[in-house]
Amino acid sequence: MIPVIRVDERDNVAIPVADLPEGSEAGWGVVAREQIPQGHKIALEDIPEGGAVIRYGVALGHLLAGVPQGGLITEKMLRLPDSPDLDSLEFATDIDAELPEAPVKSFEGFEVEGAPFAGTRNILGIMPTVQCVAGVLNGAVKRMRRELLPRFPHVDDIVALNHPYGCGVAIDAPEAAVPIRTLRNILRNPNFGGEIMVVGLGCEKLTADRLLEPEEIRPGNVLMLQEHAGFVKMTDALMEMAERKLRRLEDRRRTTLPFSRLCVGMQCGGSDAFSGITANPAAGYASDLLVGAGATVLFSEVTEVRDGVEQLAARCVNSAVGRRLVEEMRWYDEYLRAGGVDRSANPTPGNKKGGLANIVEKAMGSIAKSGRAPISEALAPGERPSAGGLVFAATPASDMVCGTCQLASGMTLQVFMTGRGTPYGLAAAPVIKVSSRSNLKDMWSDLIDVDAGVIASGGSDIRTVGEQLFREIVEVASGRKRPAAERYRLFNDICLFNPAPIT
Amino acid sequence: MIPVIRVDERDNVAIPVADLPEGSEAGWGVVAREQIPQGHKIALEDIPEGGAVIRYGVALGHLLAGVPQGGLITEKMLRLPDSPDLDSLEFATDIDAELPEAPVKSFEGFEVEGAPFAGTRNILGIMPTVQCVAGVLNGAVKRMRRELLPRFPHVDDIVALNHPYGCGVAIDAPEAAVPIRTLRNILRNPNFGGEIMVVGLGCEKLTADRLLEPEEIRPGNVLMLQEHAGFVKMTDALMEMAERKLRRLEDRRRTTLPFSRLCVGMQCGGSDAFSGITANPAAGYASDLLVGAGATVLFSEVTEVRDGVEQLAARCVNSAVGRRLVEEMRWYDEYLRAGGVDRSANPTPGNKKGGLANIVEKAMGSIAKSGRAPISEALAPGERPSAGGLVFAATPASDMVCGTCQLASGMTLQVFMTGRGTPYGLAAAPVIKVSSRSNLKDMWSDLIDVDAGVIASGGSDIRTVGEQLFREIVEVASGRKRPAAERYRLFNDICLFNPAPIT
Repeated sequence: MIPVIRVDERDNVAIPVADLPEGSEAGWGVVAREQIPQGHKIALEDIPEGGAVIRYGVALGHLLAGVPQGGLITEKMLRLPDSPDLDSLEFATDIDAELPEAPVKSFEGFEVEGAPFAGTRNILGIMPTVQCVAGVLNGAVKRMRRELLPRFPHVDDIVALNHPYGCGVAIDAPEAAVPIRTLRNILRNPNFGGEIMVVGLGCEKLTADRLLEPEEIRPGNVLMLQEHAGFVKMTDALMEMAERKLRRLEDRRRTTLPFSRLCVGMQCGGSDAFSGITANPAAGYASDLLVGAGATVLFSEVTEVRDGVEQLAARCVNSAVGRRLVEEMRWYDEYLRAGGVDRSANPTPGNKKGGLANIVEKAMGSIAKSGRAPISEALAPGERPSAGGLVFAATPASDMVCGTCQLASGMTLQVFMTGRGTPYGLAAAPVIKVSSRSNLKDMWSDLIDVDAGVIASGGSDIRTVGEQLFREIVEVASGRKRPAAERYRLFNDICLFNPAPIT
Repeated sequence: MIPVIRVDERDNVAIPVADLPEGSEAGWGVVAREQIPQGHKIALEDIPEGGAVIRYGVALGHLLAGVPQGGLITEKMLRLPDSPDLDSLEFATDIDAELPEAPVKSFEGFEVEGAPFAGTRNILGIMPTVQCVAGVLNGAVKRMRRELLPRFPHVDDIVALNHPYGCGVAIDAPEAAVPIRTLRNILRNPNFGGEIMVVGLGCEKLTADRLLEPEEIRPGNVLMLQEHAGFVKMTDALMEMAERKLRRLEDRRRTTLPFSRLCVGMQCGGSDAFSGITANPAAGYASDLLVGAGATVLFSEVTEVRDGVEQLAARCVNSAVGRRLVEEMRWYDEYLRAGGVDRSANPTPGNKKGGLANIVEKAMGSIAKSGRAPISEALAPGERPSAGGLVFAATPASDMVCGTCQLASGMTLQVFMTGRGTPYGLAAAPVIKVSSRSNLKDMWSDLIDVDAGVIASGGSDIRTVGEQLFREIVEVASGRKRPAAERYRLFNDICLFNPAPIT
């Protein structure tokens, strides 16, 4: 018999873990009136036209036409409810969750002088001020990897942090603060060990003083191509500068550190109807273990949690944090409105194929990755946290843009839950991939690091997979293990969030 | 004596071709009252507070305080005039310019079946539908270059056309048409020989049907990673697909073609006060030679020509084209306004250091690259031309974004004028770099292909350098010569113009 999963006892729909043929028993005395594809919703009772479809105990929407018990409910049959009002939220009413105790108390990381978080990798990160220099920089980095890196066995990699920003942009526009802050903070990601290597052109808008403190702007840290006599000399100068930086990075060693020095990012992408009952809750459990042990955990993706803002507001430690959360949500509502769309622009064809009816259902599943801990801070895109614990780092939901923003916020390891499957990875931080369905793990055995699908098939539970994921995080953070994306060097581009105009 | 250049007899300022020391004679009976840096403006008469500063016969702005004859005028001393009104333009009043006759009548290009333009290179271009697949695709392309390319000596290169678009975007937003059209048309750039190789994930928003015609969507052209069992199999499938495409590309040969089959893009970046009197007018002369011989020439960069819209309107072949031009300008005015800025956001610190006071002065210099030919068409960003001749292809002025949009419009070779110097280049089309000052050519001898600075120092003239540039274009287009950026593989990223929100 194919298991059919109901998340909350108030739900009037459930989802089968594999295709459920017409005539099969679904449980609760319900028989499928038609084939119900894996992850899609079967009605557990007659639901009339206008009736609420309830999953996670929440109305996902209202039916445009009635559906009988045992019928299939798809995204086209639902009217989206209004998004929750931001003006009447209650804050700090659900902040006493007891967090599980971590089975391990420390990890091995690279300390960075003066920085709150330690690195999980020892990487030379090279930041261009402007896309113009990317061609020269890419060529030089290729040469550095070939000629220099083998001589520095304690350095993990050399990474060009290319981005499309820096010139041809309205650098003084109000929203230009977002991309500038993001680049400024990526440069300071702990995985780069506090070494600053900035490569500029010489006539760009993003001048070094917008990225660096006055005392950081010196020839040892900043190289401008226009000051060098042609391509060959530019490359030579880049090689020399890199060698000086590598020499310093080479001396670094991992030390045993408390979890308060670890900053982990949570993200999901290519989600399906299982994401919210397997991979994301398991990640949430791992997050609770981390937060309970003193770590900082970021969760993000504004449009994917907007419909669960009431739950998040209740978990904000105080109303000041709650108001910051609301500010970020309001900003995004307005940003979408100005572009002629709303939150319904979020779900993808893959989400829908995976059984997610709309953004409300997606949000309920997405929030699960934040566990039950109280929210200690809310950040604007690319900001760095000032408090530890669970932090809502507002970012777009685009995987690459979220990853880029979290790198700026100090994340040194990311956990990525996926239902449909994506080969996503980052050059600047290891990414652990968690599948929501075991079919995906079977299909992509060399790309998925942890399978949470076993929760749906009954072979395991959220707590067990959550603890397994926590241990995987510690292994990867400590450099004892490399996840698939890191092994295969599957690295996505730095994708910057720039809500300001380009010129 | 240091030459000092006055562009138009109405001008009340001029610029020295090298630093002009205090007390030196500038010509016209004027003596420098202070040091005038290279390319900066010296007042040729007393100009009172509020008086117009005139260069190119046009008021660049009005003085905030009076400047005596021989004094230095910098950008901070000028008030920007209002931008020209778009509602009262006269069209088609200056369309009878006589174009010079080209000394050569044909080039050697790669014909593409059914396409108006021929390729200047024979490249396998691989288009991802979404950034998610970039990691896998980059790894595969590295292997293709190593294992496959040497077996296909008639193929110039294999290029992954990675971009940040495809998912996590508001794909149905009104302005999403811009990035989608751009990608759709880049795929069809003649340098890719009509071969279609699209790599998708399987759950993204930018589905294959948004990029391809129904008959183009088949397994031979489109590969979805989610349909392949893991990383190793994905890479194998990409290798196989590439080999099939390479086999077809390998059979192509150059043939002698009329210029009507050539589409050249003009662009400038890192401009200075010489750009408008040396490199850009020389490019304009080359453009007139090309247009006169039947070629299509694109010029772009809306914010850099906005202040010269009256000149452009007069050169539109008819009022229909004029109205399209105005529509594009109006769209950009509104786009900037919505982002809280205006056209004054365009000039860079490098422009100002190079002597360009503001966007009016920059515009007068920028327009020079379009020569004197009438404007036969005006395109939205990323659109393909339907007429030949001189085409205004509206794009942002950002070098990489303009390059990306011009590739979509069918450009197969770009001419790039620079004053301050940039190592800019494109993987998909050769880029010829022209310096506005001989100092730059001396400094960057291995990066600049043509020096137009000799026009300012008196060693040559616009016509001679323009014809030299025309011959260089023909040599590069015909594959007999490779410009510096191509030789050194200095390739910038595909930087997509996406005025719509991301989610």
